[in-house]
Amino acid sequence: MRLLIIGGSDAGISAALRARELRPEVDVAVVLADAFPNYSICGLPFYVSGETGDWRQLAHRTEFPGIELLCNRVAESIDVGRKVVIIRTPEAITQTLAYDKLIIATGAKPLIPDVPGIEHVHPLHTMGDSFTVHEKVTSGKVRRAAVVGVGYIGVEMADALTHRGIEVELVGRSRSVLPTVDPEIGAVIREQLESRNVRVLTGIEIERIRRTDGGLALDGTGGLASTVDLIVWATGVSPASDVARSAGIDTGIRGACKVTRRMETNLPDVYAAGDCVETWHRVLQTYLWLPLGTTAHKQGRVAGENAVGGDAEFAGALGTQVVKVFDLAIARTGLLDHEAKAAGFSPLTSYAEPYDHKAYYPSAEKLHIRVTGDALSGKLLGAQIAGNWKAEVAKRIDVFATALFHQMDVDEMNALDLSYTPPLGSPWDAVQIAAQAWTARQLSVGKRRQENR
Amino acid sequence: MRLLIIGGSDAGISAALRARELRPEVDVAVVLADAFPNYSICGLPFYVSGETGDWRQLAHRTEFPGIELLCNRVAESIDVGRKVVIIRTPEAITQTLAYDKLIIATGAKPLIPDVPGIEHVHPLHTMGDSFTVHEKVTSGKVRRAAVVGVGYIGVEMADALTHRGIEVELVGRSRSVLPTVDPEIGAVIREQLESRNVRVLTGIEIERIRRTDGGLALDGTGGLASTVDLIVWATGVSPASDVARSAGIDTGIRGACKVTRRMETNLPDVYAAGDCVETWHRVLQTYLWLPLGTTAHKQGRVAGENAVGGDAEFAGALGTQVVKVFDLAIARTGLLDHEAKAAGFSPLTSYAEPYDHKAYYPSAEKLHIRVTGDALSGKLLGAQIAGNWKAEVAKRIDVFATALFHQMDVDEMNALDLSYTPPLGSPWDAVQIAAQAWTARQLSVGKRRQENR
Repeated sequence: MRLLIIGGSDAGISAALRARELRPEVDVAVVLADAFPNYSICGLPFYVSGETGDWRQLAHRTEFPGIELLCNRVAESIDVGRKVVIIRTPEAITQTLAYDKLIIATGAKPLIPDVPGIEHVHPLHTMGDSFTVHEKVTSGKVRRAAVVGVGYIGVEMADALTHRGIEVELVGRSRSVLPTVDPEIGAVIREQLESRNVRVLTGIEIERIRRTDGGLALDGTGGLASTVDLIVWATGVSPASDVARSAGIDTGIRGACKVTRRMETNLPDVYAAGDCVETWHRVLQTYLWLPLGTTAHKQGRVAGENAVGGDAEFAGALGTQVVKVFDLAIARTGLLDHEAKAAGFSPLTSYAEPYDHKAYYPSAEKLHIRVTGDALSGKLLGAQIAGNWKAEVAKRIDVFATALFHQMDVDEMNALDLSYTPPLGSPWDAVQIAAQAWTARQLSVGKRRQENR
Repeated sequence: MRLLIIGGSDAGISAALRARELRPEVDVAVVLADAFPNYSICGLPFYVSGETGDWRQLAHRTEFPGIELLCNRVAESIDVGRKVVIIRTPEAITQTLAYDKLIIATGAKPLIPDVPGIEHVHPLHTMGDSFTVHEKVTSGKVRRAAVVGVGYIGVEMADALTHRGIEVELVGRSRSVLPTVDPEIGAVIREQLESRNVRVLTGIEIERIRRTDGGLALDGTGGLASTVDLIVWATGVSPASDVARSAGIDTGIRGACKVTRRMETNLPDVYAAGDCVETWHRVLQTYLWLPLGTTAHKQGRVAGENAVGGDAEFAGALGTQVVKVFDLAIARTGLLDHEAKAAGFSPLTSYAEPYDHKAYYPSAEKLHIRVTGDALSGKLLGAQIAGNWKAEVAKRIDVFATALFHQMDVDEMNALDLSYTPPLGSPWDAVQIAAQAWTARQLSVGKRRQENR
């Protein structure tokens, strides 16, 4: 049996590894568009910043025992009737690859809008992109840079370029920084960026880019007129699902492939996983498009298992994410208040500022924690934390994520037996102090409602 | 209604606060043996080390609105028929305090064996103890110290005294350091201690202590003969349940009070909570004696709620603990392999050494992770982690603890949507890499068993 996988990043390689682990006799081949199988796309900002010295370190792994890697090959089409994939080689020759089972893991592609002068900007999505940007920032010719986009990659790139001694302005369309967290947390991030001399400009659309004598002129709404030496474009991605759609695979949100929770498409023997598919959300109990490396790994593992005869089901994503910006880590899981409201919940969001550990032990750091729960059912719906990146922000959001996975009530979180020692926590951990703040708010809002009747 | 609480540490104060929160009209009084309500006993080593400069900082809180604190008063007996507690005041006068509901939260007391010369040693259990030890270590007269006991307090005190520039020997009866974790993790702690010049002597019983011209001579099994200027005794505690037992409260393991999961004793209107009671274990589904501040807080909260007419139930402890020793954090939750075996499970324990974050980002640290699961059911039973104290060891054990709270399968942990950014994790977090190592071991042991048939 031959398992063919299109895409050699997180989902594709995860699928290949899982298939081989379960059925070592299966013949597994992976077609990838470049020569960098299973490279850490999330690591590109750190290569640009110089914190990761050698790009080769970015490989999640360098050995793929028993897996045939077909590099620098682009999948052009799929013939489902004949069960073959047509690929183009570096020499522009087309080849036909047969499959018994096929997994499509073609990922996402940067969203680059049709703005005059857009050819002057650089995305940061592939190893190739990062080589280009790396060469520029290490050339000594970039004194000022603009990063367009205030999402995860945008804020990371603002950090990375500052790390290189470059003056950075961060420009975004949304009103707050990192719109995947609440504006209150966005304000904490903005403060951190500005404290490191990043100029933060929000609520702005880029209208035109021109090469001038002084550099690249950037014009936008709100009177934006600045001149820089480099523009990094990070306004998001969209699913790379063209080949899948042409082959007859049903697509949905943003053009992402529709899949079952077993990662099956509507075509026989064809699975899909990762950034090119719709993702089942565990709290919303519906599909979203939610491109994340962690999710891609899990979906790939499920697709790989099922493609070789297994019976796995994707448990659903919670949208858990964390990003480091200078000394700050910002994390979220589950739903924001407005997302919960849009989904028909009755959300209530609390805010607490507990210390990460007992204040009597040196270096205690205040954490900003927002908890969103359903005011009627008491169920946890989501949480956000911002705080020093050494203050266990990431794994604290993981405690919320694990609680959310199990549909816990917010108040029930107080029953969790969490670890404590004064240098690393409190008898009630910060996540429980935040949960208690939510319950107190629920009580007081409930009382006010009763009084107003 | 008058709620009387005996004991002003974690359980007692937690009960008082919860009772007032729910029923502000209830009259709440707390009898405590010293003048330090709700002080952080877990913080004493850091006051001794000097990391916490002022002992007053050790108060978990300094305001107790609406709660009457009766300091320096010792409860002598309880008359259940008359519903009164007899106390002794600092002036040795006895007083009678009436109650409608009573909560016993008398905690634990140090275990000091009957060894010749034992009067020369210092426990570290009360604020008074810590003042004595603090005075000695800051006097400049202590050059060499012995810490007897290799449990949590023992290893913390070895760290604390080293921090003061004192030469330390750590002496314990058990063969490995910190016997509440597996010997393999104990070896990691021993290495850390020895790298900081702590002399670690295990498998030794102290037989005699003498004051000599050179200091305090310590003789023990295995040829132990050393002379030091200070001996800190930290060989554990036992329940302080004398008053409760005299009043007719049923006691069990080690003499701890027997309670229901609602924290009721066998006497009407009398509750008990904290280190003086038996604790329901969530995995074992039985009672143990497991004195921990986190548990005391939770049990106190339940007792306080129920004493004022609530209906709360203690969800059970998992024995989650963490301790910092120099640069190392060591954490556990759930059962060790031998504990699981003794309880009738079919435990299988795996070991993994994942990095705390992507190795291409600076300062990645290897974590030592042991996962114990049931080989037949696949259920998670426990986990242990040792690693750099800044590598999110504590909150990673909390992810295991939250998974354990929900009776997850080890393999199911791969479905958890945990956060990832290269400076703080991996696409599969270290806890998931450890879970995968367990599953791989389960598969290979299963195969070997089949082959041997």
